[in-house]
Amino acid sequence: MRDFSQDHRWLSINTATVRRSGGQELPLPAIIEACAERGIRAISPWRDQVHAAGLADVSRMVREHGLALSGYCRGGMFPAADAAGLQAAHDDNRRAVDEARELNAACLVLVVGGLPGALQGRAAHKDIAGAREQVREGIATLLEYARGVGMPLAIEPLHPMYAADRACVNTMEQALDLCDALDPRRSGALGVAVDVYHVWWDPKLQQQIARAGKERLLAFHVCDWLTPTTDLLNDRGMMGDGVIDIPRIRGWVEAQGFAGFSEVEIFSTGNWWQRPHAEVLDTCIARHRSVV
Amino acid sequence: MRDFSQDHRWLSINTATVRRSGGQELPLPAIIEACAERGIRAISPWRDQVHAAGLADVSRMVREHGLALSGYCRGGMFPAADAAGLQAAHDDNRRAVDEARELNAACLVLVVGGLPGALQGRAAHKDIAGAREQVREGIATLLEYARGVGMPLAIEPLHPMYAADRACVNTMEQALDLCDALDPRRSGALGVAVDVYHVWWDPKLQQQIARAGKERLLAFHVCDWLTPTTDLLNDRGMMGDGVIDIPRIRGWVEAQGFAGFSEVEIFSTGNWWQRPHAEVLDTCIARHRSVV
Repeated sequence: MRDFSQDHRWLSINTATVRRSGGQELPLPAIIEACAERGIRAISPWRDQVHAAGLADVSRMVREHGLALSGYCRGGMFPAADAAGLQAAHDDNRRAVDEARELNAACLVLVVGGLPGALQGRAAHKDIAGAREQVREGIATLLEYARGVGMPLAIEPLHPMYAADRACVNTMEQALDLCDALDPRRSGALGVAVDVYHVWWDPKLQQQIARAGKERLLAFHVCDWLTPTTDLLNDRGMMGDGVIDIPRIRGWVEAQGFAGFSEVEIFSTGNWWQRPHAEVLDTCIARHRSVV
Repeated sequence: MRDFSQDHRWLSINTATVRRSGGQELPLPAIIEACAERGIRAISPWRDQVHAAGLADVSRMVREHGLALSGYCRGGMFPAADAAGLQAAHDDNRRAVDEARELNAACLVLVVGGLPGALQGRAAHKDIAGAREQVREGIATLLEYARGVGMPLAIEPLHPMYAADRACVNTMEQALDLCDALDPRRSGALGVAVDVYHVWWDPKLQQQIARAGKERLLAFHVCDWLTPTTDLLNDRGMMGDGVIDIPRIRGWVEAQGFAGFSEVEIFSTGNWWQRPHAEVLDTCIARHRSVV
């Protein structure tokens, strides 16, 4: 297992972590500058942040600073209530692949979607098996395109509390079943993003990380699970402040040969998004060295 | 699959559903009277409610009204940080078995516990595998006693969002692995409580219900998953108000031969606990007939 205690060369910042600074929105260029100033070598930006700043400008900044992208957030949201919705998702996902390619991201992270309309509080139906079939078909189609342009797709199993509205792929086992079905040769074009927040509870986690193997372990995300957790979406903890044994999980991932970045992704309306981003980034660096 | 549309003979009320009426605490005797008045044939009371009313009085009321207990809530909370804590949990669980016996409950429901101290926001450690081992040992010991007095134990896999603080058994598969290990002969002394709120998201649910079979399906609980869900514990929905395909899951359970009560268990600080309990119970009856 790599020693993270001496430096932060393997730290990546998911830019959602500092999308707000002191409660105010922080534009992506400012995030990039703040990361570069601290010798952070990688980021993982969100599409809305990239669009707001302009893809060409972001691409230029990333290159000038020599930043790597540990991933690009995000594609997915495949299920839809009708053919037009499915086509719109398909088109948008191709654009996401193109953007990830332009930014030279390591992978496009897929948050696959749940029941159509549920995120707006108006689920079109209750057929989660049907939604999962649309996800399978959506990934299969996107994979053909992504493979052609050389952009790996990383399915991110989301915590089961997001099954209805954000992602109906909820365990590593389920994600890897998809990988086995759609990329049986383990080509590297399709794999998983392992976020400890989503999977730490899973009694089969160690087994499924071993099953994934190096070819399918495309990204590793960290934060922490707080007790109590006061919001289903935006109350993630800083590494070390919760109950996840992060080094143990990183050990399992690295035992398979994963040697990429450890990406910090924290959504925190009430705490970290209220603090100055400088403090948040400095804390990420410190915790990366001490508890990841 | 049984036809529930004509009456509510298979409805049971978990008494937590009406533990508050119009925002005020409602004592168990009043709950029992209100259920009996409506021809509800079964309840599942919580221990704190029974203790507050007195076990002997509750036992007498239940007998006088001819009420069945679809379960008794609850035993469990096995993990502890030290030997004294383990012993205290053991002793308390024996008392819970005795109370369930006195009330002639169909089973004692086990919410197995998580990381010691996490429910108080002060987890003693991060070793969820260790907590799971304590759960296995705790159930094994309790099972000897419960078998002796003829009280079935129903392990309730809780939603993974409770893994840290309430129950580190989080899937049907994991619960059934425990059953297979501790009661390989499928004697009926150990099984599972299937609560749709906790398991509806699981891609292996149908498969694992079939694996459980009649001998291990000891209880069936219903409510609904709301989108959005605003609180991790106390924002459960009334059946029909959320995204769970309850009849589909009930069909899977009944296909195995389950013929017990469908128990309504709703924790709802902001909605149902604010309403008069008469309205809540009448709604439970109506929804039992129309959407369960």
